[in-house]
Amino acid sequence: MRLRLTVAYDGARFSGWQSQANGKAVQDALEQAFRILCGTPTTVHGAGRTDAGVHALGQCAHVDVPDKRLPPGDWLGAVNAHLPQGVRVMRIQKTPPDFHARFSAKGKVYRYTVWNAPVLPPLLSDRIWHVPGKLDRDVLRAACDSFVGRHDFAAFCARRSKVPEPTVRTLTRLCVTRKGAEISLTFHGEGFLYKMVRMLAASAIRCAGGRLPLEDLRHRLKNAGPRINHVAPAGGLCLLRVIY
Amino acid sequence: MRLRLTVAYDGARFSGWQSQANGKAVQDALEQAFRILCGTPTTVHGAGRTDAGVHALGQCAHVDVPDKRLPPGDWLGAVNAHLPQGVRVMRIQKTPPDFHARFSAKGKVYRYTVWNAPVLPPLLSDRIWHVPGKLDRDVLRAACDSFVGRHDFAAFCARRSKVPEPTVRTLTRLCVTRKGAEISLTFHGEGFLYKMVRMLAASAIRCAGGRLPLEDLRHRLKNAGPRINHVAPAGGLCLLRVIY
Repeated sequence: MRLRLTVAYDGARFSGWQSQANGKAVQDALEQAFRILCGTPTTVHGAGRTDAGVHALGQCAHVDVPDKRLPPGDWLGAVNAHLPQGVRVMRIQKTPPDFHARFSAKGKVYRYTVWNAPVLPPLLSDRIWHVPGKLDRDVLRAACDSFVGRHDFAAFCARRSKVPEPTVRTLTRLCVTRKGAEISLTFHGEGFLYKMVRMLAASAIRCAGGRLPLEDLRHRLKNAGPRINHVAPAGGLCLLRVIY
Repeated sequence: MRLRLTVAYDGARFSGWQSQANGKAVQDALEQAFRILCGTPTTVHGAGRTDAGVHALGQCAHVDVPDKRLPPGDWLGAVNAHLPQGVRVMRIQKTPPDFHARFSAKGKVYRYTVWNAPVLPPLLSDRIWHVPGKLDRDVLRAACDSFVGRHDFAAFCARRSKVPEPTVRTLTRLCVTRKGAEISLTFHGEGFLYKMVRMLAASAIRCAGGRLPLEDLRHRLKNAGPRINHVAPAGGLCLLRVIY
């Protein structure tokens, strides 16, 4: 029986999504819980990796479990009872065996959040990027607008390996909202390159702070400029949901 | 020169507001920062105590500092640079010497927050009370309405000492809002007894969950019933602001 999981976690407590030798990844925590419940080593397949410090409200994953091991309605409580603080499965649904958390995904929604005021409220530390300086809202919006569409994002990603990967991606929407000192950038896309959201967020904020000309940003989107070397902090990023 | 401070803190990181022998209270952190900046032991007077685990967005305090030690606009940054993670002074204003954070206070606003769904999102742990069971909204509202006004809250407070204290207080307003699974109870009052907000919150939730008859609650407000023996968890409580 294949189960589809919606997973939320506090990224500050884990070394990222992907299984690590030290066992401190979110995937490790889930696999350990399912190993206990299934009585056998069990792989949990995520929709995608998130880095250490990055949060999730709606990461998706699938896992195959023995039929009739537990009544379908009991899995949610049972799994959560075996998870450490900082990660919870919010929802479990039975899914057809051809569903694959990664390969069936049609897109993802990430939110990057910035606190734009002199002092950061302590309850938000590790969850938001503190940018105390003045930001130009119009420039922020213009920078974000320029990201939308199909571009070669080679200048806005970190290399994961030495093998060159295709770097053209489509950003379908980027919503910018401001509520008091809190600025949210919500990225909707079919797929994202490694560290791309954090590099786009850092670039847009640098433009809005007058530290990067908008023209430079646009050149880079035509793959005519050097790679951006600023990555916004992991704690400001949250995977909101995976689209299937 | 007297300064008025607006202080925010993550209660999970401190043993409460009031100075402790172990030095792990919010007051200790502030007094240590001011001692460094003033070059002499300095007392920080808070508007009131909060218990270990209770958060604040707008605790108020005052402190006397030597004139001309720093330009007035530099205090905020200087103090925050000497504070540990989990506490920040959000605002500093020069105030007349007859202002007293505790004795000048006319009231306080506390918010108690409950998460009413089967699973608690991990980013909210330590910040909300997880109540998974079904709650009757009408009963919750009726219970909260019955608290408003001038009552003897003797049944809804913990004793701090063996000396009996007056227990009549006026709750001027109690707003109940629900947004998805999150229920907020916002208490406006002239003054609160020890653990009163957490005992009122626990009682209202027990009524809404069918575990305490509304009539019992009302009897107790007439000081005709035994003391309530349920205290809602500290992490759900936040001191929003002090009214002067």
